[in-house]
Amino acid sequence: MSEDRYQLGLEKLAEIDGEQGQKVVDALQSIAPEFATLMIEFGFGDIYSRPGLDLKSREIATVAALTALGNAAPQLKVHLHAALNVGCSPKEIVEILMQMALYAGFPAALNGLFVAKEVFAERGIELVEAP
Amino acid sequence: MSEDRYQLGLEKLAEIDGEQGQKVVDALQSIAPEFATLMIEFGFGDIYSRPGLDLKSREIATVAALTALGNAAPQLKVHLHAALNVGCSPKEIVEILMQMALYAGFPAALNGLFVAKEVFAERGIELVEAP
Amino acid sequence: MSEDRYQLGLEKLAEIDGEQGQKVVDALQSIAPEFATLMIEFGFGDIYSRPGLDLKSREIATVAALTALGNAAPQLKVHLHAALNVGCSPKEIVEILMQMALYAGFPAALNGLFVAKEVFAERGIELVEAP
Amino acid sequence: MSEDRYQLGLEKLAEIDGEQGQKVVDALQSIAPEFATLMIEFGFGDIYSRPGLDLKSREIATVAALTALGNAAPQLKVHLHAALNVGCSPKEIVEILMQMALYAGFPAALNGLFVAKEVFAERGIELVEAP
Amino acid sequence: MSEDRYQLGLEKLAEIDGEQGQKVVDALQSIAPEFATLMIEFGFGDIYSRPGLDLKSREIATVAALTALGNAAPQLKVHLHAALNVGCSPKEIVEILMQMALYAGFPAALNGLFVAKEVFAERGIELVEAP
Amino acid sequence: MSEDRYQLGLEKLAEIDGEQGQKVVDALQSIAPEFATLMIEFGFGDIYSRPGLDLKSREIATVAALTALGNAAPQLKVHLHAALNVGCSPKEIVEILMQMALYAGFPAALNGLFVAKEVFAERGIELVEAP
Repeated sequence: MSEDRYQLGLEKLAEIDGEQGQKVVDALQSIAPEFATLMIEFGFGDIYSRPGLDLKSREIATVAALTALGNAAPQLKVHLHAALNVGCSPKEIVEILMQMALYAGFPAALNGLFVAKEVFAERGIELVEAP
Repeated sequence: MSEDRYQLGLEKLAEIDGEQGQKVVDALQSIAPEFATLMIEFGFGDIYSRPGLDLKSREIATVAALTALGNAAPQLKVHLHAALNVGCSPKEIVEILMQMALYAGFPAALNGLFVAKEVFAERGIELVEAP
Repeated sequence: MSEDRYQLGLEKLAEIDGEQGQKVVDALQSIAPEFATLMIEFGFGDIYSRPGLDLKSREIATVAALTALGNAAPQLKVHLHAALNVGCSPKEIVEILMQMALYAGFPAALNGLFVAKEVFAERGIELVEAP
Repeated sequence: MSEDRYQLGLEKLAEIDGEQGQKVVDALQSIAPEFATLMIEFGFGDIYSRPGLDLKSREIATVAALTALGNAAPQLKVHLHAALNVGCSPKEIVEILMQMALYAGFPAALNGLFVAKEVFAERGIELVEAP
Repeated sequence: MSEDRYQLGLEKLAEIDGEQGQKVVDALQSIAPEFATLMIEFGFGDIYSRPGLDLKSREIATVAALTALGNAAPQLKVHLHAALNVGCSPKEIVEILMQMALYAGFPAALNGLFVAKEVFAERGIELVEAP
Repeated sequence: MSEDRYQLGLEKLAEIDGEQGQKVVDALQSIAPEFATLMIEFGFGDIYSRPGLDLKSREIATVAALTALGNAAPQLKVHLHAALNVGCSPKEIVEILMQMALYAGFPAALNGLFVAKEVFAERGIELVEAP
């Protein structure tokens, strides 16, 4: 374990994902604790810590990719929280998810929107005003 | 054909994709011209014209999704041009493509980077300074 | 909202999906009601309403695609109901799902068959006669 | 090799794919000739020979699946020929490909349409009448 | 049904998957019993019974593929049991799953690891020693 | 750059991929040289250098995954060379590729076999003996 990359990654993980990311790390402890270390070092220490792209743009890219791939609902949930944490508005997130219909089809977009519905409910976000 | 949505879409297509988008529309003329119309109306008139997310963010999302899906090299090429057209820097684009390694694997990221290499060459963009 | 395309789409949605489609539209109300509108207008008003391919053939194509993609179980369920609504026999549906093993592998076909098992049970369809 | 299944498969292959299928079988001779045998026996002897779904419907399902999967352009080409061989009209094929935009996104549909453009050209099919 | 291929496949299925495979076959009885037969004949009689690659290597390949595809969690579970049955150690399985992060991304690897966590728990396997 | 991980990765890359891997690294120099560094450090220094799974088994897993994913032909080519370099026989490779038909469909397996045909030709490997 490289102390610096790990420490840098841990701070970036906390900044982006908050407690959601820590839950994933915890869940790995009994099966592959070194994978959690590699994910923090490489994912958050090496990639998310790079200059050249702001965190909000990074989360827009991640939310779009996970929605399009369509086989990563738990990770999409983590990154919808992350996107809100780093400055995406709920409305912006809905726009990203809707746009994915063009590139990955309506089912991928629909499934992404229903994950967002859960995330918004957990955070008490109401998107559509009462009449 | 709804005159307004089509006209709105055509303007948005020109703003985003420039001549790259028109080439796709032209290529469809002999096989499915109505599909070109629907793509302009729905894709550009309905989706890309929506408020709530700026065009630069929309192209970040599209580049990420097409790279992650990995089966859409011609469309990725069009949208790498589009991303540059609406304000992404070459460096930002490289960061988005590199980040996709985390979510879709290194092959998807590598293939995306090699498409970007072609696009940058076409536009005379040099990323790495000579020593 | 284009009144005509929306109205046409709504009628086509009712013809094909019955109450299953309406449930999806309802579920979108609190998160992205405009996405429901676009889906009805574009998906059902523009695409499913086109001449040139009968609805039974359209649902064969949709069931095959959703089974092959393998990341769209809720939408496959809706379209298995739809396929039965527009004239596919349960036996024909099983044949389509089995055939997908050739193109998307046995897991995709198996998962499709188990979704069909649920749909047939909901509608009281028994495929295999008692000995 | 089961003589009956192989013979049945070979006849079904000839009926559906004509010389296109034979080319695939030939190309396998120097690398995995037994795979060609298994493909003929299982794919064409066991699956395509089953009663319960007509060949035109089977090819609609295959064309839809291969377009949606998006990583099988050579096989899509073979099956676009096959679909025409067993009674799909060029117009019906274009409708299937366009519909895939709903489920797998516009890039998958576009790439499918451009494969169809090649197939139609090889067969001298003109879809759009001159003005 | 070819008696020999079916019998050979049934024995191979029992050797590899034990009761897990039989459960899948049973679940197919009310929807597509002939699909179970084809899967045993082709999958286990024709493919897994071939010489030229040992069963442990075959399961390494299958676990890798199902993890990378990411849309086949139930089948991955069956084949994690199978991999253990034919001689993979729990540690080797964790290594295969971790390695998939390189080719299919971290979400695919994570989801695979969490399926393995379930399988190991069912079999009373503890990977990480208490301190 | 961590000198140790980079050096370790470079040695592992040379052991596994030989000149094929170096070509990928070279091709990245003008677009994303740091991505080449990360790929060597993380992919080869962190993952392929781990104990617990021999290199031959690692390449079996990689070849299977890349064949199943189906959107990574250039990387599959590199890893077919790698698999031969670390001890897979051509026959074993053909078996892995054929087996993928079960999990990812015949097109994925066929496309993988045709990439192998190229690799075997480049290395002068003849699989099927003359009669």
